[in-house]
Amino acid sequence: MKEISQTPLVILNFKTYLESTGENALELSKICEKVAKETGVKIVVAPQHPDIYRISKEVDIAVLSQHVDAIDFGGHTGSILTECVKEAGAVGTLINHSERRMKLFEIDEIIKKTSTLGMGNIVCTNNIETSVAAATLNPDFVAVEPPELIGSGIPVSKAEPEIVEGTVELIHNINQKVKVLCGAGISTGDDLKAAIDLGTEGVLLASGIILADDPEKALLDLVSKI
Amino acid sequence: MKEISQTPLVILNFKTYLESTGENALELSKICEKVAKETGVKIVVAPQHPDIYRISKEVDIAVLSQHVDAIDFGGHTGSILTECVKEAGAVGTLINHSERRMKLFEIDEIIKKTSTLGMGNIVCTNNIETSVAAATLNPDFVAVEPPELIGSGIPVSKAEPEIVEGTVELIHNINQKVKVLCGAGISTGDDLKAAIDLGTEGVLLASGIILADDPEKALLDLVSKI
Amino acid sequence: MKEISQTPLVILNFKTYLESTGENALELSKICEKVAKETGVKIVVAPQHPDIYRISKEVDIAVLSQHVDAIDFGGHTGSILTECVKEAGAVGTLINHSERRMKLFEIDEIIKKTSTLGMGNIVCTNNIETSVAAATLNPDFVAVEPPELIGSGIPVSKAEPEIVEGTVELIHNINQKVKVLCGAGISTGDDLKAAIDLGTEGVLLASGIILADDPEKALLDLVSKI
Amino acid sequence: MKEISQTPLVILNFKTYLESTGENALELSKICEKVAKETGVKIVVAPQHPDIYRISKEVDIAVLSQHVDAIDFGGHTGSILTECVKEAGAVGTLINHSERRMKLFEIDEIIKKTSTLGMGNIVCTNNIETSVAAATLNPDFVAVEPPELIGSGIPVSKAEPEIVEGTVELIHNINQKVKVLCGAGISTGDDLKAAIDLGTEGVLLASGIILADDPEKALLDLVSKI
Repeated sequence: MKEISQTPLVILNFKTYLESTGENALELSKICEKVAKETGVKIVVAPQHPDIYRISKEVDIAVLSQHVDAIDFGGHTGSILTECVKEAGAVGTLINHSERRMKLFEIDEIIKKTSTLGMGNIVCTNNIETSVAAATLNPDFVAVEPPELIGSGIPVSKAEPEIVEGTVELIHNINQKVKVLCGAGISTGDDLKAAIDLGTEGVLLASGIILADDPEKALLDLVSKI
Repeated sequence: MKEISQTPLVILNFKTYLESTGENALELSKICEKVAKETGVKIVVAPQHPDIYRISKEVDIAVLSQHVDAIDFGGHTGSILTECVKEAGAVGTLINHSERRMKLFEIDEIIKKTSTLGMGNIVCTNNIETSVAAATLNPDFVAVEPPELIGSGIPVSKAEPEIVEGTVELIHNINQKVKVLCGAGISTGDDLKAAIDLGTEGVLLASGIILADDPEKALLDLVSKI
Repeated sequence: MKEISQTPLVILNFKTYLESTGENALELSKICEKVAKETGVKIVVAPQHPDIYRISKEVDIAVLSQHVDAIDFGGHTGSILTECVKEAGAVGTLINHSERRMKLFEIDEIIKKTSTLGMGNIVCTNNIETSVAAATLNPDFVAVEPPELIGSGIPVSKAEPEIVEGTVELIHNINQKVKVLCGAGISTGDDLKAAIDLGTEGVLLASGIILADDPEKALLDLVSKI
Repeated sequence: MKEISQTPLVILNFKTYLESTGENALELSKICEKVAKETGVKIVVAPQHPDIYRISKEVDIAVLSQHVDAIDFGGHTGSILTECVKEAGAVGTLINHSERRMKLFEIDEIIKKTSTLGMGNIVCTNNIETSVAAATLNPDFVAVEPPELIGSGIPVSKAEPEIVEGTVELIHNINQKVKVLCGAGISTGDDLKAAIDLGTEGVLLASGIILADDPEKALLDLVSKI
């Protein structure tokens, strides 16, 4: 079962690391699959576009796209078409990641388009204000990630709990259907537990697992306290 | 044999058409493979990134990426990493297509990077001047495509032969190792023959074949006069 | 008196037309000043950045910037700094115009920065959903402009009144302090009156006045029914 | 006399520093004017767009734009129109600065357009290869600036003399009409002299002067050895 509605949800963003490219991406996905099955925690992966097809065929795990462009079928050489990542096996997509920020109207278009296509969507945001703005557009998830903490090893759930709590509270005031994730600096079981305790339904993370000496052990630790 | 050094060369850019996405991209690639084998003309395909892996595994044809970003391994969510498209099976990439223009320094970086990785590269350009500028950067191919003719059905080899001839002449004055292609409005055997007669080593085309009622017949006609 | 709080408000976006560049921009601003004084209707102008200083010094009219970049003092060659347009005489800025769409986080940053600097801000949007999202960020104005009508001569207040009404209603549900403007295709007194009747506090317009045979007459007609 | 053909040429890029914005930009321009008159060395300034008009009217110094967009008259809200900066008093423009890189086709368009309008142009580049590519497009100047040295205080003319010499040599092989400048880390008279000795016709600099405790003294030192 590959959808992303089960929570708590752990999204592993593969970014473009050597450790999560090509054959390495496949192996890492299998580790995620194994840990998810052993622990019952929902883990989904967001590999690079050229790796989506292979992982979705060879691994029993939900696959997200890291990004899609706000385009439809036509002459758009080099762009990422939502229908194409869907046919390759993606069940949803990240939108507006801090390393790939999007225009407001594009975020709106992609939320609508992925919803119409039956795909999930997670809008990444940088603070409480943009989280609330994004939530009015009816995404499935908003993932708040203070950019200064991304890749820092300092977990947002400890360094800036008020941002996480504020996001949860204000989003639920404005649109109860939107689920909140948080990210930036997350790597341990304590970090994830703190995120859940602050009212989120999961986390978005990357280097804390991908660059760990032993990603399987790191993943097992991550999900050990929920 | 999948490299792109054999000429005349026909590059079919799949863009993001419905007719060249996912399963349709696979079928179209098989048609290209069949026509290439029957006629001995070198045909390569440039599908969308999520389709590269599958086509390169299931079809005996050289596969190009439509675009790569000027990045290396690291934290670049949503970007297209050259190493990733290579591992997925791409033997080279288009650069600076008119629908995905790039910055000068990025074109330089990607030519160098693809060369280092043993991949081919084709820089698309819009006129004689930018073709010469691109040629100084030592790409394998420069593909000149006047943007006003792209998708027009009016072949550049007939509408603006002086641009094609001028590009061939000036590039060969400055860098003899660079091969010249042309594109825009190409669809028939006459168009391709005219391109070759003007001194190019092949063509880059898309809608003339992809949107044809019968792409196999259109491809057979395309390569019938060389 | 140069602020933009008085309504109904007419904002004339000079874009980059020949008729509104340099000396022409100065003349057009003087026409706006004259009509505003004669009729008592608040008219403000948004000229190109190099024309802001001269117009703000030589004409008694509130001047807006067409755009500012989400940057602070530092090394940002070629970017538009909010502090610089303020010192040149701008009392506020357009944000996210359809010809210069911005990223969500940039819109948030610029609203905060202009407010801190005591400047006004008008966020342009393309539909009801993005208007509501923008309104949560606490701008002074949201100006909804369906992009397909911009420059069309077909007034949004007649062609798509439900978008204007819906924007007014939903924004006032979520943030009563935000004033709503509309734009796209506006040129006559009937268009402006219809906009006001739909609940807006004014309009944003350009070619309907700038490219008119007699801009003064066109402006006088525009404000004749309110 | 305001043109930029006299060499050696010192271009002071004001960027968006507090010390070179608005009133400060005017004062700094007057310092440049004074030093230029006292020493006979040609100094030109590149202030922010909103400051071009005022400086060109109030100071006897050649003014450049930091950037222009590849657009013509029309509906381009927020863009920088070449005709507008010209009418405001700019005699030329920087193109492709490392903080505002441009697409290859845009560089070509802007070189042609500024030449047609009788304006000067200086294309900034990051290495020998892109310098040669830019030189084929017939700009007035190419200014090579290794990005890792910009703002570093380490002068390119000492840290990487081979890049400067190589650029001069290869550009003169390909297009003798193009003059070469260098930049990055330049601040002292020794730096400028070294740049001239390496075959350039001047320098492009910013923070070394603008952020100096005493910009006039720093400028006097800069031009003291040529």
